[in-house]
Amino acid sequence: MHGLMQDRPLSLPMLMDGLEHRFSRKHVTTTQPSGTVSTSYGDVAERVRRLAGVLDHLDVPAGARVGSFGWNSQRHLELYMAVPCSGRVLHTVNHRLFTEDIAYIVDDAADDVLFVDRSLLDVVHPLLDTCPSVRHLVVMDDGAPTELPTDPRVHDYETLLSAARPVAAFESVDERTAAALCYTSGTTGRPKGVLYDHRSIVLHAMTLLMADTFAISEDDTVMPIVPMFHVNAWGLPYAALMAGANLVMPGPVMSPERLVREMKACRVTFAAAVATVWRGMLPHLGDADLSALRRAVSGGGALPVSLSRAFHEKTGVPLASSWGMTETSPLVCSARVPSETAHSLTEDDRITALADPGPPTVLCSLRLVADDGSPAPRDGRHRGELQVAGPTVAAAYFGGSPQASAFTEDGWLRTGDVATIDPLGVVRIVDRTKDLVKSGGEWISSVELENEIMAMPDVLEAAVIAVPDDKWGERPLACVVPVPDSGLTAESVRRHLSGRVAKWWIPEKVVLLDGLPKTASGKFAKAALRRSMTTASG
Amino acid sequence: MHGLMQDRPLSLPMLMDGLEHRFSRKHVTTTQPSGTVSTSYGDVAERVRRLAGVLDHLDVPAGARVGSFGWNSQRHLELYMAVPCSGRVLHTVNHRLFTEDIAYIVDDAADDVLFVDRSLLDVVHPLLDTCPSVRHLVVMDDGAPTELPTDPRVHDYETLLSAARPVAAFESVDERTAAALCYTSGTTGRPKGVLYDHRSIVLHAMTLLMADTFAISEDDTVMPIVPMFHVNAWGLPYAALMAGANLVMPGPVMSPERLVREMKACRVTFAAAVATVWRGMLPHLGDADLSALRRAVSGGGALPVSLSRAFHEKTGVPLASSWGMTETSPLVCSARVPSETAHSLTEDDRITALADPGPPTVLCSLRLVADDGSPAPRDGRHRGELQVAGPTVAAAYFGGSPQASAFTEDGWLRTGDVATIDPLGVVRIVDRTKDLVKSGGEWISSVELENEIMAMPDVLEAAVIAVPDDKWGERPLACVVPVPDSGLTAESVRRHLSGRVAKWWIPEKVVLLDGLPKTASGKFAKAALRRSMTTASG
Repeated sequence: MHGLMQDRPLSLPMLMDGLEHRFSRKHVTTTQPSGTVSTSYGDVAERVRRLAGVLDHLDVPAGARVGSFGWNSQRHLELYMAVPCSGRVLHTVNHRLFTEDIAYIVDDAADDVLFVDRSLLDVVHPLLDTCPSVRHLVVMDDGAPTELPTDPRVHDYETLLSAARPVAAFESVDERTAAALCYTSGTTGRPKGVLYDHRSIVLHAMTLLMADTFAISEDDTVMPIVPMFHVNAWGLPYAALMAGANLVMPGPVMSPERLVREMKACRVTFAAAVATVWRGMLPHLGDADLSALRRAVSGGGALPVSLSRAFHEKTGVPLASSWGMTETSPLVCSARVPSETAHSLTEDDRITALADPGPPTVLCSLRLVADDGSPAPRDGRHRGELQVAGPTVAAAYFGGSPQASAFTEDGWLRTGDVATIDPLGVVRIVDRTKDLVKSGGEWISSVELENEIMAMPDVLEAAVIAVPDDKWGERPLACVVPVPDSGLTAESVRRHLSGRVAKWWIPEKVVLLDGLPKTASGKFAKAALRRSMTTASG
Repeated sequence: MHGLMQDRPLSLPMLMDGLEHRFSRKHVTTTQPSGTVSTSYGDVAERVRRLAGVLDHLDVPAGARVGSFGWNSQRHLELYMAVPCSGRVLHTVNHRLFTEDIAYIVDDAADDVLFVDRSLLDVVHPLLDTCPSVRHLVVMDDGAPTELPTDPRVHDYETLLSAARPVAAFESVDERTAAALCYTSGTTGRPKGVLYDHRSIVLHAMTLLMADTFAISEDDTVMPIVPMFHVNAWGLPYAALMAGANLVMPGPVMSPERLVREMKACRVTFAAAVATVWRGMLPHLGDADLSALRRAVSGGGALPVSLSRAFHEKTGVPLASSWGMTETSPLVCSARVPSETAHSLTEDDRITALADPGPPTVLCSLRLVADDGSPAPRDGRHRGELQVAGPTVAAAYFGGSPQASAFTEDGWLRTGDVATIDPLGVVRIVDRTKDLVKSGGEWISSVELENEIMAMPDVLEAAVIAVPDDKWGERPLACVVPVPDSGLTAESVRRHLSGRVAKWWIPEKVVLLDGLPKTASGKFAKAALRRSMTTASG
């Protein structure tokens, strides 16, 4: 028997009503080199309708991918709304990736149009010629002095916007329609696309509004420091628009001093960033009045308790951990202390507890799977691979990438993280099954580094492992066995990598060894290597 | 282009995981005449599986309606889960309705099995003979002395439960599957059923967890004083189970003293009731320590500011209004002060503001429609009929009741309430288009009362209007024009109604008049009548 409730989709056009009515005087503030610009949501909504008109004018078909290369800004926010609300798919690209990977991603997504911040134009303009799918490039002027190329395919955002015919009303969108695409490098091999639908984005935003998750409220001023090309800035822009919270966008000016200054000036109540950014801000918190701040979320990698403690000392607010992946929209776990234990904790215990990922959000189902495939008990002691299911979790990769191993036969996502879950649902990450390094919230593939290094004629074998790093969380360390008497040096390895991988992938430390420990099956025994290297370098 | 997220339904079985793992030690406490009983959610989950086994044992088909006549209790909570999770539909019946209406409702729903609290057995047992669809009656012993009839169709809940084979795992339920059925008398004519699906119930519960709505948290102890036969107790049981909050169920003991005592003893943080119940509790708040209380929601009718002020004086917490209907799951609006006005309000202004229904929840779209069908502006001054759309709003009535007038051609619900909406989204109800009286949170149909009165040979004509009442919010007042020299008295009208309508429908005041004011088209001019009577009786 079918229910008789209205068949209203969970889709992004439903946010327009709030922007145009209830929250029309709330605003988004963007930092630019020249100063900050605030725009009301009423005006943003009007610009979103115009931007959808621009996409019509450029003949972008329904379902086509619209690529964005942008910092966190009002214009990027307008893309977040206009592209999916008008039936296209917003593909946010991480411009920090290696040029070759960027070209691969734009090609794989078959982006039809690219929107690019002027400061990133040098990276993006060449794609017009190398990626055949790209027909137009729209430049968003973020105050950078980069010269605009004379190219009929290159347009100015504001010029197009003022000429556009605004879309009067967005048509109803089926909730399973694709809305956004984001590539993850958190896998081995080529980057893989995760294709979010309207339903998953709306449900994820609803989750962020919940009291026990981020509790995003109309009272909030939300600052997503996490880039908008990282899993929809962890869903925060959509959550803020849904709740009617103000937004503060750091723009291209990502210096820690400036971030602290904006947090203070805009009386930010909620901010989210990777641990590396929080660490960078520490020295600048001294005399900043952050009394408005109620929650500072750290994600994208482990949160050191010492960092949270230091942040708490300066602001009165501990950092709160969170855990998720590109494949999970991303939020799966959000740190909180369950009521059953809260009363027995000291303030410092609480800070420590909030450094764990915490319990799952209401829509995510978790399970732990032991090495032998059996379920591991949720007793806080047994460990297993963390697997996730839910309507905000990917079922497959874009283009059907042959990455079946990321999903179980019964449709759960294998996260590649090894965890424990305690009886109150608190998740702790204890290890990683995948061969990756998480540096400043970004993935680095050990396997790719190894392949590049082993391509050197003077190298016998090489293993790259993650070692803890105060600033970046983790950094890659290369253990290299040279061909005897080849004269290979650490510096020649680093020089070789330069130009072959992104600059920030290159290991600071390259250790030359006589041999590498192996497992019984002949694979590099990375766990053993990690243990010995961490001790040695500690 | 389709998204690639997992196809996981928003359905009630997803709550089981929380009950069995994270929240297994949280509990539901039920007040019974003999004392209170607390049961852990872990045990509740096991009993829910057993109860589903009972339904299998009784051969209740998928999609069949399972009627419940119960107070707020742990067993009723078990029905809330077991019935929909196993693919049946829970039909909660308001046992306070007139016997004839109850029989009509059970018949219209074609209930297969009825679950009844022992204290309500006298009302329900006759239905076994009068309603042919009902095959079994299961008695939940709430401590009442009512004798159990010797009837092979009558079973004891606990006996069935201990004999049952628990359902090991609930099958996945399509989210549009019917989950619950509730009849509203908030319409003219026969009661009409609203058939909720799993999706609407889950989405509604998610809404109640949001910071700007009820902010139900794992830290909460939630007491739904509103009956479980009233629109799923406003969704609170499902919200509490989703969040992992404790529940306090008042059971059959609904005296104000007892309610206050339980709130104190269980350190209730969140409670919800109609204004009449809050008013009744006022004199008993004197020495109660309600320091744990963070929110007290009033719904089901207008909230007088004076009541909220008095409540605030005794508890430090103002009452917060809410607005909804059986057709809307029910929550549409939840009182809160938007941030733009909050800073300029005194404490008393704030109490006053919270007596308005407030802004809509994130999934409800609102519009105001003026008399001429044009949209009324949301300026806080213009009034119009409030219309609602969203995935938690009914599209039709059960059985296709010919009540098309309740829905617009474009599929919005006509609420029958006349409202204003201000630029910050705050809704204020200013009038009612439907001819109904709301007494203590329950609807009374003026039209039905008029029909019954006009059936008296000594009555020429009669109109029933709502007049304000301190205790009940509104009460019906009958304006009756007798046949000249018939000797009709107010008392004879009241006597006539007795046995024809529910006792609490009978107007305390019957006014005999020489004639009734009419509109140009000859209808009773009720607005004029209301004005003159309110002045006269004030």
